[in-house]
Parts: sequence; C-alpha cells; structure tokens
Amino acid sequence: MEIVTRVADVRALVRQARAAGKTVGLVPTMGFLHEGHLTLMRTARAEHGLVIASIFVNPLQFGPNEDYAAYPRDLERDARLAASAGVDAVFAPPVEELYPQGPADMLTFVEVKDITERLCGARRPGHFRGVATVVAKLFNIVRPDVAYFGQKDAQQVVVVRRMAADLSMDVRIATVPIVREKDGLALSSRNVYLNPAERQAATVLSRALRLAEERLKAGQRDAAAIRREMGELIGGEPLAACDYISVCDPATLRELDTVAGPALVALAVRIGKTRLIDNLQWEG
Amino acid sequence: MEIVTRVADVRALVRQARAAGKTVGLVPTMGFLHEGHLTLMRTARAEHGLVIASIFVNPLQFGPNEDYAAYPRDLERDARLAASAGVDAVFAPPVEELYPQGPADMLTFVEVKDITERLCGARRPGHFRGVATVVAKLFNIVRPDVAYFGQKDAQQVVVVRRMAADLSMDVRIATVPIVREKDGLALSSRNVYLNPAERQAATVLSRALRLAEERLKAGQRDAAAIRREMGELIGGEPLAACDYISVCDPATLRELDTVAGPALVALAVRIGKTRLIDNLQWEG
Repeated sequence: MEIVTRVADVRALVRQARAAGKTVGLVPTMGFLHEGHLTLMRTARAEHGLVIASIFVNPLQFGPNEDYAAYPRDLERDARLAASAGVDAVFAPPVEELYPQGPADMLTFVEVKDITERLCGARRPGHFRGVATVVAKLFNIVRPDVAYFGQKDAQQVVVVRRMAADLSMDVRIATVPIVREKDGLALSSRNVYLNPAERQAATVLSRALRLAEERLKAGQRDAAAIRREMGELIGGEPLAACDYISVCDPATLRELDTVAGPALVALAVRIGKTRLIDNLQWEG
Repeated sequence: MEIVTRVADVRALVRQARAAGKTVGLVPTMGFLHEGHLTLMRTARAEHGLVIASIFVNPLQFGPNEDYAAYPRDLERDARLAASAGVDAVFAPPVEELYPQGPADMLTFVEVKDITERLCGARRPGHFRGVATVVAKLFNIVRPDVAYFGQKDAQQVVVVRRMAADLSMDVRIATVPIVREKDGLALSSRNVYLNPAERQAATVLSRALRLAEERLKAGQRDAAAIRREMGELIGGEPLAACDYISVCDPATLRELDTVAGPALVALAVRIGKTRLIDNLQWEG
C-alpha cells in the first residue's frame, strides 16, 4: 500500500487504474481509524479494483472553539490498519495541498441549505459547509465511482447525498451500519478523549436509542413522547449533558410529530468535554 | 452533429470518447449563438477529439426582475451554427433535467465569496451563485479537460477560475478575446433587444473603453480619473444609463487607486431596458 500526499499523484493513480478498466472506491476519513472505518474500507475493497482512503483532518469543518488542534492523529498506525483492510492507497495530504493559500483564504464553498441547519448543524455553524466543500474537493480529485460513509454520521450522509444529486456528481454514496463496542457505544475516534468514568457514562447514547427502539416496536408513534423519555434517561446520567435529541424524517431531517413511516432517531450528548453522536434508522 | 438532452447520454458520449483516447472540450453557453460563441467552439475544435457545447438558459442565474423568460432562444439555428463550428454534440437539456425538482427546490449551491459581490455581482444578487452552481454541474456531467468562456464576461471568468481552483476541479479554463461588430459593439445575445437608436447608442460602451485605453497608453495612472472620464462620455449619451464603471485588479476585482500593473477596465450600461457589459484587459 502506498501513502500519497499530492493531488497530482492521486490523479495519476486513478488515471492508471481507469486505463486498466478498474472502478474506483473512495473512503473519506479524518483518520485515527477504528473498526467502523475499516468496515467501510473492506466493503470498498470487495467492490472495486482501486480503493483509496483519504485521511485528512479538515480544518474547514471545525468551529473556532472545537477540537481541530486536539483531534487525534496517528498516520503510521492508520496506514497499517488501512493496508490490513485492503486499501491500495492512503491519500494523506498536508493542509496546504488542499488549501494552498490556507483555509482562511478559500473563497468558494459548497453550501447545502436547510438540512445542514438542523441537528448537528444547528450547534455547529459552518460544520457542514466545511464537510460538503472538502468532500466535493475529494470527489473532484479522486472521481470515485462509489464513496463510502459511516452511518454513524447520519446527517453527513444525508448532506453528501443531497449535494451529489443537486450538483450532478457522478458518484454513488454507500453507507455501512454503525459498528459498536460490546456495551453498545458507537465507535468514534473521539472516544479516545473519554476517561474511565466518562467511558461508562457514554453508553447513555446507545441506551437511549435502544429505549426509543423498544417504544417504537411496542407501537409508540408519538415522537415527542419518545424524545422526552430519551431525555429523561440521559438526564439520569450525571456526566452527560444532552445537546439534542431528534426523531425526524430521514430525508428532510424535519422533526416528526408522529412516526408514520421511516424515521431517524439521532442524538448528540456531551460527556465531559467530549461531544458524541449516535443514531438509529427506524424503517417504519 | 447530435443534439443530446439527457445527462446520461452526455456521459455515455464522453465515456466513449475517453475510451478512444480523446480529450474533451466544453463550451458552456446560453444559446442564441453569435460569432463570439463560435470562436470559442472553433478553438475547442482545434484542441480536442470531442467538443460539446451546452445550450442552457439557466434560471438559477437570473434575478426575479431579470429577463429569464424573454431571453432569446433558437435551438434550431444554434444547432446549425454549432455544427458549422465543428461541435460534435450540443447538450441542450430541458430545465427539469438539470433541476429535477425545479430550481426553487435546489438545496445545494456553489458560493464564491467576495469576487462575486463586486461589479455585476453587486447589481445582480445571486447571479454568480447561479453561474457557479450550473457550471459546477456541467463540469460534473461532462468532465471536460478544458472549458471555454468568452472574455466578454470577464467577471464570470474570474469566478469560474477561482471556483475550479478552490474546489480542486480537474479542468483548465480557457478564454477567447471579445468579438466585436465593426463599430466596436461587443457581440452579445442581448444585442437583439436593441432598437435602431439604441443600437447606435450602445457603441458608448466600447467608446468608453477606447478612451480608457488611450488614457492608459498616454500614461494616466489615476484610476478615479479614468472612471470619471468614462462616466462623462457615457453621460453624454442620452439613451445610456451607467450601471457601474470599474478599474480593478484583474484577480481580486478590487477597485484600484493607481494602475501600477495589469488592470481590468469593465463597465455595465443600460441602453433602454437592455443591460450590456464590456471590458478591456490592460496588461500593464
């Protein structure tokens, strides 16, 4: 497996693969890989002749008070893991390769309205603008047939899908289900921030989702009642502070009154200083 | 020459050409072709194995009080002219092919800051957002090696170049010089709106630019003095109402105090109800 840091070199790799009749799968990540990422990579491996994983902590999607500088990085370990998952090339550009004049001097942004202003977007202004912009750049660099995203970032998937459709991008967006620890905690690179007590408390997210699922299975259709019960469960965890709880339409991300069909149950919770997200897709 | 109306059919054409080792040139237009467009097409023809010209009056780049509905259209004539210029395929999609839910339901836009807020952008809010978004879509559909734009729309060229660089698009932006009538009027599809008296008056734009050029050649370096003299010349034409006169940096489009190097001299003037633009690139 090779590590590529230059846009021109990725393009050359892709050109070569295309000339050999290969299809191209891209797994965009911010690195510090866990089993969730590796599942994406293995899926891509099974489906394409060339698999590229990008590892780039994108400054454009972090707010001024967020954890850009602290975000965990370990390229050596990531490269080993990506290789073990069958990735052909890791694209790990330095910041100035994607933002030659620096991220602050970018003039062009991909803006997705409405669906970016809900859930995480309401708490992280500019976050999804940064995500959409860097994903558009990665798509323009790699031109993958399929790009793979984790279902844990449910809103990100909705935003990227909508962007790709609205901008006539010739790429399919594929997802893989959330990978969890045995006790239910969704894998996240940010779990490394948790001390032992917080690690215990962090199970409150998946417990709240299981509660929602039980209620839905039992026939509860009142979205407000589900949100309230989830909020009460989280309120019972002293180390947890609820950021949002959503029972929403999975395409528009608008809050539902009644769960009449498919729904996305999503939440963000702060455990100490660490903000974690999780979700459940209810098929209706 | 074929006329293609579906995105999937354009993609198939391009795929076929690529497989045959051809490069691809794209000439995006709004149709009602004139010699300016045809020069772009002939240039593309000389440089590529496959030349696609798009003809699409893009609703997204017209303001509510602008001439979207009235904009002149004549696909049959355009197809004949494009064929005569050596174009292989005209891509003329219906609006619903590029905006399946209608332009009003688009959520995703390519926004270029700052340089879109000057010159024409200051008078046409949303115009360059519409331009950047549809050009991004056309680039994603055709994936040209080179896209050709007329220098008459100088700000558009600056915006598209910046968008392509910021979003890591793998396309070169090429321009051709402004094509003019014998009396100096820059060719424009909108010239068809002019009645005979207005047609006479419309030469005021190129006359103002010639005056600027004379002054620059004579050593005038005071940008305000050049703008003032141009304004006086235009003020002397009863059918003309000046929209803006700019002597600006050709990359940032910021107004200059002193012309110390290259400059863009640009103006927009209303002749009756018709808004015309023209410009001069001063190499410094």
